[in-house]
Amino acid sequence: MNGTLVFGRPLSCIKSRILNKEYFNKCVTSSSFRGFSLSSSKNMKLVQFSYNEKPKNVYVGYVEGNGVVDVNKLDNTLSNTLLGILNNGDLEKVKGIKLKNPTPEPLSNIRLVAPITGQDKVLCIGLNYMDHCKEQNKTPPEVPMIFSKFASCVIGPNDPVKLRTEVTKKVDWEVELALVIGKEASCVKAADAFNYILGYTVAQDISARDWQKDKNAGQFLLGKSMDTFCPIGPWIVTSDEIGDPQKLDIECSVNGELKQNSNTCQLVHKIPDVIERLTSVMTLYPGDILLTGTPGGVGLYLNPPQFLKPGDVVTSTIQNIGTLETKIEQYVKKG
Amino acid sequence: MNGTLVFGRPLSCIKSRILNKEYFNKCVTSSSFRGFSLSSSKNMKLVQFSYNEKPKNVYVGYVEGNGVVDVNKLDNTLSNTLLGILNNGDLEKVKGIKLKNPTPEPLSNIRLVAPITGQDKVLCIGLNYMDHCKEQNKTPPEVPMIFSKFASCVIGPNDPVKLRTEVTKKVDWEVELALVIGKEASCVKAADAFNYILGYTVAQDISARDWQKDKNAGQFLLGKSMDTFCPIGPWIVTSDEIGDPQKLDIECSVNGELKQNSNTCQLVHKIPDVIERLTSVMTLYPGDILLTGTPGGVGLYLNPPQFLKPGDVVTSTIQNIGTLETKIEQYVKKG
Repeated sequence: MNGTLVFGRPLSCIKSRILNKEYFNKCVTSSSFRGFSLSSSKNMKLVQFSYNEKPKNVYVGYVEGNGVVDVNKLDNTLSNTLLGILNNGDLEKVKGIKLKNPTPEPLSNIRLVAPITGQDKVLCIGLNYMDHCKEQNKTPPEVPMIFSKFASCVIGPNDPVKLRTEVTKKVDWEVELALVIGKEASCVKAADAFNYILGYTVAQDISARDWQKDKNAGQFLLGKSMDTFCPIGPWIVTSDEIGDPQKLDIECSVNGELKQNSNTCQLVHKIPDVIERLTSVMTLYPGDILLTGTPGGVGLYLNPPQFLKPGDVVTSTIQNIGTLETKIEQYVKKG
Repeated sequence: MNGTLVFGRPLSCIKSRILNKEYFNKCVTSSSFRGFSLSSSKNMKLVQFSYNEKPKNVYVGYVEGNGVVDVNKLDNTLSNTLLGILNNGDLEKVKGIKLKNPTPEPLSNIRLVAPITGQDKVLCIGLNYMDHCKEQNKTPPEVPMIFSKFASCVIGPNDPVKLRTEVTKKVDWEVELALVIGKEASCVKAADAFNYILGYTVAQDISARDWQKDKNAGQFLLGKSMDTFCPIGPWIVTSDEIGDPQKLDIECSVNGELKQNSNTCQLVHKIPDVIERLTSVMTLYPGDILLTGTPGGVGLYLNPPQFLKPGDVVTSTIQNIGTLETKIEQYVKKG
């Protein structure tokens, strides 16, 4: 291990973590969290999955014990995408299934895919953790810096990130808490914002730093939106199960070395304020996701910088949600 | 009319238009246009539409004489979205219908909507016309500046742009040539790029300048992606019908006053090069659209600046495609 690192993190980062404890205490006491009120989504880990014998067909379910309940098998009127279920207002039906305690499918028979796909928007916030700003010697922006990825970038817990190594050598990790919108939201006030959130998942805002910073005239889009650059999962934990989403430990390891280790209390622009701001200019739709920013410890600001390469494994964990493991592979052109 | 304007354009713009004639001559001679080779799409103006008596149901068709042929009525195996037809590889079936010369529905019975919706990507290029760079005293970026809108921003030829006047007072027009991807494209070389284009339509890259420039920490996304900020239409002209897409007159009027008046030969980064660059980092999918940039004459750089207000009508015309008329209205919050 590099002598300047403790669990893979430079000492300067450790110092900023200590500084951030003050910020932590401040934000814990000032938090104004309110839970999601849609009774239909109580206490579920929502998933999308395929059966091993039919890998191309995707179904919706929820985690139960050591298995997954297939809600499509139990109610054939339900869409076989979570987006479809949200758009049809059918979460109540899923809750009804859960009340009957059906037998889950064993995990060994299935493969989890991304818990939500095909959405209109994958929004992200830049520079939104105090410790991530400090490692860049930057003052947090006064307003949230919003950029986006494409829905086609979203992959699941068993899908690899595929590096186009011919065009980028600087692909970085960024663990993030992602929220999933549960119902259409426009002109929402911060005080009501949590009512529009279905739940939360772990996300990686995989970033090609060369394209993000230098190769697209300052616009982040291309560096953030290469194919496979948005792993999410393994499931969506409904809001009522997660507690306060702005008091969760969040960390990321690469090949077992801890790189990022923080708490969502460090969010500069808080979730309700960001939702108020976003919905002042646009409508958010069910299934839209918002990646809320990454803490300090990304590869670009390590000394020397570190980037992902084929063969690496990125492990992303958020308290009360779970762990998303992502393999890094080489992109191979089809055909 | 303001004494400093000729057809609504400041004299400085007229001068830059004259300078640009040299550029025009250069690019006309260097053009390397090749037509789209999918025989299935020959000579059609593809539309999506609804019947006046059933305004919520959308169908796919093509323009024939003074009407529209409803391909869903003639083949019930076809998807009732153009995106679905592209994804299912069913353009051949549409061509088969055309060969039988069916009777079109009269225009008076129908209402055109956006010709393509629900796509993964709405890509845009910033600063991509010589005359638009000159009006800002900017050198064109060495690489294309790519940003995006959301599919939910797309509206059709009979839909109004709705201004959220509480949060922005600086909404501007930008007429653009938009191309529509016809088949999946990754790692495409410039020489092959036109083979992946289904056709072209007229677009407006409506832009809230305050949010684009100042209110999102330099990222264009929010200023470009307010609801309704991407009018397109009235149809998609297939590539074989349009001639060279980089030799088309393009203009925009507001309330009958000519504001933008240029030619697509002024594109700084040419369509094939941009497709090569984009597909070097991401996969383009059928239905994805690329707005290729706007010429000089936007409201922000007029003296004094001019912005859109409820009641305005924006008329956007591109040679060999047609005219897209867009009404500007006040956004009204639902409920």
